[in-house]
Formats: sequence, structure tokens, C-alpha cells
Amino acid sequence: MDSRFDRLPDRQGSDSIKWRRYDGEAVIPMWVADMDFAVAAPIQEALNRRIAHPVYGYASVPSSLKAAAQDWLAERWGWSVPEAHLVALPAVVPGIHFLVRALGRLGCVGGLAYPSPVYPPIRQVAQNLGLNAYPFPFSPTRSVTLAQGNRGGWDLDQLARACEQGADTLLLSHPHNPIGQRVDPQQREALTELVAHYGMRVISDEIHGDLILDGLGHCPLAKDPRLAERTATLFSAGKSFNLAGLPFAFAVVPDPKWRQALKQSLRGQAPAHNVLAMVATEAAWREGGAWLDGLLDYLAANRERVSSQLAGLAGVRVHQPDATYLAWIDCRGTGSARPAEQLRRAGVGVSDGTEFGAPGFVRLNFGCPRELLDEGLQRFRRAFEQRA
Amino acid sequence: MDSRFDRLPDRQGSDSIKWRRYDGEAVIPMWVADMDFAVAAPIQEALNRRIAHPVYGYASVPSSLKAAAQDWLAERWGWSVPEAHLVALPAVVPGIHFLVRALGRLGCVGGLAYPSPVYPPIRQVAQNLGLNAYPFPFSPTRSVTLAQGNRGGWDLDQLARACEQGADTLLLSHPHNPIGQRVDPQQREALTELVAHYGMRVISDEIHGDLILDGLGHCPLAKDPRLAERTATLFSAGKSFNLAGLPFAFAVVPDPKWRQALKQSLRGQAPAHNVLAMVATEAAWREGGAWLDGLLDYLAANRERVSSQLAGLAGVRVHQPDATYLAWIDCRGTGSARPAEQLRRAGVGVSDGTEFGAPGFVRLNFGCPRELLDEGLQRFRRAFEQRA
Ligand SMILES: Cc1ncc(COP(=O)(O)O)c(C=O)c1O
Ligand SMILES: Cc1ncc(COP(=O)(O)O)c(C=O)c1O
Repeated sequence: MDSRFDRLPDRQGSDSIKWRRYDGEAVIPMWVADMDFAVAAPIQEALNRRIAHPVYGYASVPSSLKAAAQDWLAERWGWSVPEAHLVALPAVVPGIHFLVRALGRLGCVGGLAYPSPVYPPIRQVAQNLGLNAYPFPFSPTRSVTLAQGNRGGWDLDQLARACEQGADTLLLSHPHNPIGQRVDPQQREALTELVAHYGMRVISDEIHGDLILDGLGHCPLAKDPRLAERTATLFSAGKSFNLAGLPFAFAVVPDPKWRQALKQSLRGQAPAHNVLAMVATEAAWREGGAWLDGLLDYLAANRERVSSQLAGLAGVRVHQPDATYLAWIDCRGTGSARPAEQLRRAGVGVSDGTEFGAPGFVRLNFGCPRELLDEGLQRFRRAFEQRA
Repeated sequence: MDSRFDRLPDRQGSDSIKWRRYDGEAVIPMWVADMDFAVAAPIQEALNRRIAHPVYGYASVPSSLKAAAQDWLAERWGWSVPEAHLVALPAVVPGIHFLVRALGRLGCVGGLAYPSPVYPPIRQVAQNLGLNAYPFPFSPTRSVTLAQGNRGGWDLDQLARACEQGADTLLLSHPHNPIGQRVDPQQREALTELVAHYGMRVISDEIHGDLILDGLGHCPLAKDPRLAERTATLFSAGKSFNLAGLPFAFAVVPDPKWRQALKQSLRGQAPAHNVLAMVATEAAWREGGAWLDGLLDYLAANRERVSSQLAGLAGVRVHQPDATYLAWIDCRGTGSARPAEQLRRAGVGVSDGTEFGAPGFVRLNFGCPRELLDEGLQRFRRAFEQRA
């Protein structure tokens, strides 16, 4: 196991949102999705090199960056993407909004379907853009809380009903935040048929695609030729390389009309490309592979720690994720009205499931050195043991 | 004169949009608005310091950055702004769009008035957001081409007509790009009265406010109490400190409803704050003052060079700017159908006035070392002398 990840960078009193929230409180921050690990050394080196050149004017997206993205997708996701299909974006979430606006320009967006629970900004897109919202359930496949006969995953019957009612665009987090779950081939096939049947467009946010913890690798939805033309896929180095504060992203948009409309939406509305975010991203994809492999091992071991240390805690059910550094934890059985608050009082700061559309749940970020994680998990146990 | 500005950083083959456009051509790029000067050393140093800390996760806007902005506005613009009125933005142009969308949320935007010619993204806002557009003329005060009796500046009669027809929001570039002109007190007074009379909202893009070349300083429109509450002012270190590729900006929004709606629009739609852009901006405002003063002297001397070297060129009329490093040049008298093209063939790459709404004009960027400027101006002369 790579000991680099055992070192805790000092983020207290820094610009970190994650740490600032609990300034002056004895709370371990395990909420917002960035990790308490130093970035891969090549990223720092590339930034230093670029900064040594003293002009940071308007920059185009270097073709070397596009090539790095293509190579990354080919090697890591087994996905071959023509350069022409790549569109640079300020970040993933703004990119989702620009993609939906682009559909608006083409006159082809009525309602947005999305899984629930889900990453809060995805829940808000429809409202932000004045569109009808069609949430449909997504549940952990291996959850012990599932009703019998419910295999978990996407509730495709509900999605079909949403389509009948006017949903024409599907917005997915894949693999899924907060549940951290890959899609099994059967579900993927069923989804593909449904989407084709209703002629839906798909916006697939695959920012967590590099964070598959079981070594099985990520399979982008758009790899299926039946989905390719109707899908826009978003990805970045933001989550996997811990670059949330240097945002940059790409969309893969094979449909030329949609791509054109997207570029049109971006022009004169998106900020200029950030020179240093592009440098960091390129270094990540070009030189960060070994670091990421080490990270994945470390995170997989952290995941086991979360499961084992919270096992048997009365009323608490941990969903063991296939992907991401996020554990989705059902605390409804504890009887606590606001488990996130209770945890905070016990000294551990998690995300409140309410923001994701699931009160009674919490999301715990285990992307941190083991020592910190262990302390956090101990406090987690104590929070609910004390109560019992 | 500060000799630092005489050194040309090597931008050929770099990520620079300005230089890449003419890759492989013997053309001096004098178009898009960034400068061929190294940034102030404290900016580089601050970036290096921040990069040494190896986590670039989600970052809040440090209160030290807001304080630096407040101090800058107080010292440079004589404008006292409460911290609570500041809203951080990904960049100025996206900020304009978010501000207009926020008015939309409040149900109070019908049509956008803006001067013409103007910076192309400002011309496009109304169309981007599906609003009615009301351009009104803006002309150089000292232009020799003005009809008698026309004092130049904003054509306020036309603006009043636009208001009668439904314009309720005024979008200004102040000082003005591409004409680079300050506003005289009489015009400011007349504008203020008009805006108050019609109850307009004002969005004042003051990104060039630090680049006043005559030492008179910048006076933000919102300093007038009659305009304060109805105005949102945008500013950044982007132009003055040559940080176009590290975008970040603030809006000053005194009206609490508008500010709240703006924050609402930004939440979950704007990219995360870029850590390094914030560091660069803070260093600029905190430690860049002397560098900027040196720059302004250098630019003022460059401006004279543009005027004197193009004086007497048949059919060419240069407007001498009070502000910015941009010269607005009327080439209609040369008889050339596409002067920007003709200049490019002569080896100098300027912006085509057509993009600003003024065919027959060109905009020349004189933010570069004198040697390069002189060569560019020589080619400019030759372009039209050859023809004559
Ligand atoms: C599913 C998902 N999409 C997008 C993001 C954020 O991406 P960006 O900062 O590029 O908008 C996150 C961050 O946690 C996420 O979980
Ligand atoms: C008037 C004006 N506003 C805004 C900008 C660009 O600002 P930003 O990159 O912050 O959107 C420019 C750039 O030239 C400009 O001239």
C-alpha cells in the first residue's frame, strides 16, 4: 500500500471549503467531494513549469490536451473518441447546463429525468432552466433495505412513466454519486432499449468514471452504438486527481447539431479557458496513471474499513460502493431525526442526505489518510452508540 | 520609462490564442485583448507559493481577497464598497449573463440597451438570452469624423427612444471598448438623469477601469448615489494585470434582491472558484500597484506612438484613447472593403471592426513592447501606402 496517501496535508486555515466549514470546531470534515491527499507530483511540476513562463493570456485548448484526453479514454475506458467530438468546458456542472441549453436552441428539450437520490446540482438543473423535472428512484443493488423483488439500480418502470409524461432528456451520474454504484450489464441493456424506444437524449456525467474501486474499469454509456449519437458524456480529472479547485472538463458530443449548438451556447458566455487548469489536467492524464492506480488501491482499502468499522452499528446500514470515495449510509434505523447534525456534534462532518433528496441518509467522504479516517469512523460509532 | 516592458516574452508556439492565430505566418498579432508583457513578479511568486501547497480542492473566496478588492477600489477608484455587496464570478462576461438572468428571476428585464460599436460579447447578450436588443450609437468625442453639433459619446436621445420602446436594462462598457474613452461629467450627469427617469437597471462592465492613461483615474458609475442601487458593476484584474487566462471577477451589487437572485443563479451553475486565479488576482491588487503605474506610463507613450506614426496616412483616422491599450481606427477613407484583411496581408493582425458592429474600422492592440509596436505600425503604414 502506497504510504504517500498516509500523509495528511495541512489544510486547516487554508482556502479549503471542506476544512473551513468547521474552523475552530473539533470536527473532522468528511463531506464535500475533494480528498485530503496531495496531488500527483507531475501535476505540481507541470504547474511550476507553466508559471515560469510569465504570460497568462487568452489560451486555446492545446491539441496536446485533447490528445491526452483521447489517450486516457482509450486506455482507461476502452473508448475511442475522435478529437472533433470533444468540446472543452469550464467544469462539469456548468457543462450540463450548457448542454441542456443547447438542446433548447435546437427546440428539443421538454423535461428532464434524473435518478433520485443524486448529486444536488443535478437535482437542480431542471429548476434552474425552467424545465419539468422527472426524478425516478435509484437504489443500491446490494442494499439490505430493498423490498423483496426489487433488484435495485435505476427504476426503469418509473423512468418509462416519466417518458410517457414528457421527459425527453435523461441526466445521469454514472457511476452514481452518492451511491457509488456501477451499472450491471442487464440494467444497461434495459436502459439502452428504453432510451432508444422513447428517442431520449442522454447527458451522462461520468466524472467519477476513473474511480472504479474493484478493478473492473468503467464503461461509458455512449460506447454502445445505440446510445452514441444521442448521448453527451462529461468527464474531467477533477474528482480522480483531486483538482476540484482547478476546474476544467470535456464533453464528448458525437451529434454534430448538438455539438454545434453547444459551442454556440458557450461562445461569449463561458469564461475563458483557465491556462493552469488545462496544464494540471493534461499532466494528470499524461503522467498521473500510476498515482491514480495507487490511489485506487488505497481507497479500496479505506472502503473496507468503513464497512467493517461501521458494521453492526444498530440502525446504520452502509452501502459498499463499487466506485467513488463516497459511502452512502442509511441512518434511518437509528431514529435520529437529523443524523448529519448528530454526527457533527460527535465531531464528524458528513453530507446530509436531504440535499441529495434522501433525508435520514448521510454521505461520508473516505478520501483521506487512514489515520484520519479511523478517527472519523470512531466518532461515527460513538455518535450512535452514545444515543443507544 | 520602465524597461521591463521592453522585453518581449516568447509566446510563439505557446498556448496563446493571440499568437496561435498566425502560426507560421509572418504576422504580428495585435488583436485580442491581452498584452505581450510578463506579469508583475508578485503574481508569479504568489502562484508559486500556492502551488507548493499540494492540495487544490474546493476553495472559498478568501476574505483577504475581498479585502484586497475593497482596498483597491478605495485607493484606485475612490470608491468605498461594503464587503457584503461583492459577489465572486467566474469572469466578467459570464457574470453579465448571470446578472441579466438574475433580473429575469425577479421578473424585471424586458430589453437590453447597449452602445454600438462595442466589445462583441456585449452585443450578443440579448440574443443569447432571448431578449430584445436596443443598440444606441456611441462615438468618439474627439473624432474628426463627427457631424457638426454632435459632441460624441453616448447618443442619449437614441437611448431615450429605446426606453420608450421597452429597453429597461442598460449594459455599458465603461471605459469603453473599443473606443477607449472616458465619460465627461456632463454626459455622465445626463445619463444619470435619463436612467433615473426611466427607472432603468444598469450593468456596468468596468474591467478597463484601471487602464486610464491620462492619470485622471476612473470614476465608477455607481459612485453616484442616484445610480448606486440600480447598478451592478463588474471588475477584475484580467485586463490591467494581463490575467485573461486566469479569469476571476467580482460584481458589486448593492441591491439585496438582485444580489440574492444573482447568487441563486450562480449556485450550482457556475464553475467552482479557481484557486490559482484567486491567488493571482489577490497578488495583483495587493502587490501590483507599482507595476501597474509603470505599465500605464508605458502604454501612454505607446498610444502617442500609434497616433504619431499613423498620422497623415491617407484615409485613416486614429481615435486617441483615454483608456485601454486599444486604438480604434477608422479606415473607411482608404476605400478598402476589408481593411483588417488588407492589414493581415501586410503582416499585422488587428481586430475587424465588423465584429464590434462597425465595418471599415479596425482595433489595434498596442499593449506590447515598443519594438514590436513600431514594426507593426510600419507594416500598418505600408498596407495603405502601397495601395495608394
Ligand atoms: C456527479 C458529479 N458531477 C460533477 C461534480 C463537480 O464537477 P465540476 O466541479 O467539474 O462541476 C461532482 C462533484 O462532486 C460530482 O459528484
Ligand atoms: C469590456 C470587456 N469586458 C469583458 C472582457 C473579458 O472579461 P472576462 O474574460 O473576465 O469575461 C473584455 C476583454 O477584452 C472586455 O474588453
